[in-house]
Amino acid sequence: MTSKITALSKEMQTALQKKIDFKTKPIGSLGLLETIAIKIGSIQNTLTPKITEPTIIVFAGDHGISKSKGVSPYPQEVTQQMVFNFLNGGAAINVFCKQNKINLKIIDAGVNADFDKSDALISAKTAKGTKDFSIEKAMTMAQCNLALEKGKEIVNTSFQKNCNTIGFGEMGIGNTSSAALLMSYFTAIGIEDCVGKGTGLNDEGLQQKKTILKKVYQKHIINIDAPTDALATFGGFEIVMIAGAILEAAALKMTILIDGFIVTSALLAAHAIDKNVLDYCIFTHSSGEQGHQKILNFLKVKPVLNLGLRLGEGTGAAVALPIIQSSVLFLNEMATFESANVSEA
Amino acid sequence: MTSKITALSKEMQTALQKKIDFKTKPIGSLGLLETIAIKIGSIQNTLTPKITEPTIIVFAGDHGISKSKGVSPYPQEVTQQMVFNFLNGGAAINVFCKQNKINLKIIDAGVNADFDKSDALISAKTAKGTKDFSIEKAMTMAQCNLALEKGKEIVNTSFQKNCNTIGFGEMGIGNTSSAALLMSYFTAIGIEDCVGKGTGLNDEGLQQKKTILKKVYQKHIINIDAPTDALATFGGFEIVMIAGAILEAAALKMTILIDGFIVTSALLAAHAIDKNVLDYCIFTHSSGEQGHQKILNFLKVKPVLNLGLRLGEGTGAAVALPIIQSSVLFLNEMATFESANVSEA
Repeated sequence: MTSKITALSKEMQTALQKKIDFKTKPIGSLGLLETIAIKIGSIQNTLTPKITEPTIIVFAGDHGISKSKGVSPYPQEVTQQMVFNFLNGGAAINVFCKQNKINLKIIDAGVNADFDKSDALISAKTAKGTKDFSIEKAMTMAQCNLALEKGKEIVNTSFQKNCNTIGFGEMGIGNTSSAALLMSYFTAIGIEDCVGKGTGLNDEGLQQKKTILKKVYQKHIINIDAPTDALATFGGFEIVMIAGAILEAAALKMTILIDGFIVTSALLAAHAIDKNVLDYCIFTHSSGEQGHQKILNFLKVKPVLNLGLRLGEGTGAAVALPIIQSSVLFLNEMATFESANVSEA
Repeated sequence: MTSKITALSKEMQTALQKKIDFKTKPIGSLGLLETIAIKIGSIQNTLTPKITEPTIIVFAGDHGISKSKGVSPYPQEVTQQMVFNFLNGGAAINVFCKQNKINLKIIDAGVNADFDKSDALISAKTAKGTKDFSIEKAMTMAQCNLALEKGKEIVNTSFQKNCNTIGFGEMGIGNTSSAALLMSYFTAIGIEDCVGKGTGLNDEGLQQKKTILKKVYQKHIINIDAPTDALATFGGFEIVMIAGAILEAAALKMTILIDGFIVTSALLAAHAIDKNVLDYCIFTHSSGEQGHQKILNFLKVKPVLNLGLRLGEGTGAAVALPIIQSSVLFLNEMATFESANVSEA
């Protein structure tokens, strides 16, 4: 589905900087807001960008590893329970999307449960959870390719509805394990430095998680020689769908709001497939999950927020949206020195 | 006008933490949003706080030093030009207040200009700019006390109109010099480490500003023995009014949104007058002006944002408001593990 992802124009970036420097404020004094305004203007290839139909898509999937091994303090059933919580409007992501007028879509990417047909839940299930990667690959390559394509389709649907700014969230008990494995593969940072406490392991649990994931990594690494191999091996379905979704959003020239540790691990895969994807990404926050800041350093990017959030669901992206809107608004609405009759420095 | 500022109740903080820990999310996973929710709930002494009529008050004043010495790349006239820009809706603070539905009030605290009577500009002029503190004290003690009282009155007016969340901004060519002097006095950090580039001095200009302000500091320091002495000596009228405004807002149990370098220097004076004022403050951002992070470290507080803003006007407070609203909203609206039938860890 995806066509080529084109790098952004340097000329438009220069023109946007010039427009900003005529605004009634000291040069550079809006800091990161200026950087974001230039990025969004460049993505939309205009001096007057707009954010239309901002949308967050939450992908939920289950993980084989969470049934067999102690990688999370929560039981696997919490994934499906949280899906119902999303549908009923009770989760953090519901609150923040409602606050900031963000369209919210919930996707069954591969939850280990059967749901009734519901308008609110979008079914894109590849399987009822991944296989346990301590034994075998999380999914087949055919499943991985299917999940990538489904992720792309879902973004395309939002694009058709005039959405030009899109963020992704996830829910999946065990998915910080998948993310840590992907992070280690794509950044070449040792797996033990990629593993964190996830939803709240204690020090002993963290040590156990590290031991398990080190074995998993060593078991599989020799057989991985492409980004999609890594995705298929370490999963989960929600992460693969997000990787596909990111690639499609960039190809469609949408602004992509990158959330925390799990979403950024999916971005690493997308980035390994096409480096230009980074041009379309705004890194909305630095997560409290310990590996996340290391990925941001690896990508040499600066996050918008650093609130110590480690909840997932796309909450960082949702909370950051007003700041991103501030960037676009100052670019469009502030007076210039000339129009306001203000003396320049 | 101000009555006593009471310290916040520890019991309410504990009760709020307990309420938060029943929400459908891993313990502590909303990071700083949880801290803010607890602070606002404690200020309002309720488990269900609300933000009502959020307001930002911008105080504008001129500085004698900016006429005589090279402490800013902008001429003094820019203060009054920017007041007109505020009144016409063209400044950054206008854009961000409109975006985030914040009431905005502009105060003439002591601009060196005569304004026509206008509904939009609130006159609270103590004098047409301060005296040049390289020669004499910026203002008399009587003027300082008057400005403190006027600052309190203005906050009281907003409080009467159901505002419970208030931020302050400022405009005044030369006021980073006043702020640096106050910072040095109240933190005991050497004046040269308090001085920054303000609206955009080059390295040479910065060196000159340091030399000038070091002399000013040495000239006056021996005669200062109370927080109000420091305010009267170093000014400006807008900073003194903000100090009074902060004290009054805390006495009225309002949530105070502290902006950047200049507003935080006013807070240092308020804090020296009554330490409990800190209980009511949310530090909305860390400014790009180099001294600001040092003040935040001195006060041992963590800012909400770190976007490299260094514009003043209250822009950091305005841009941060949605994040602060997110805190209150998750506290009030998220489901609990029990209500959502989600298994706990």
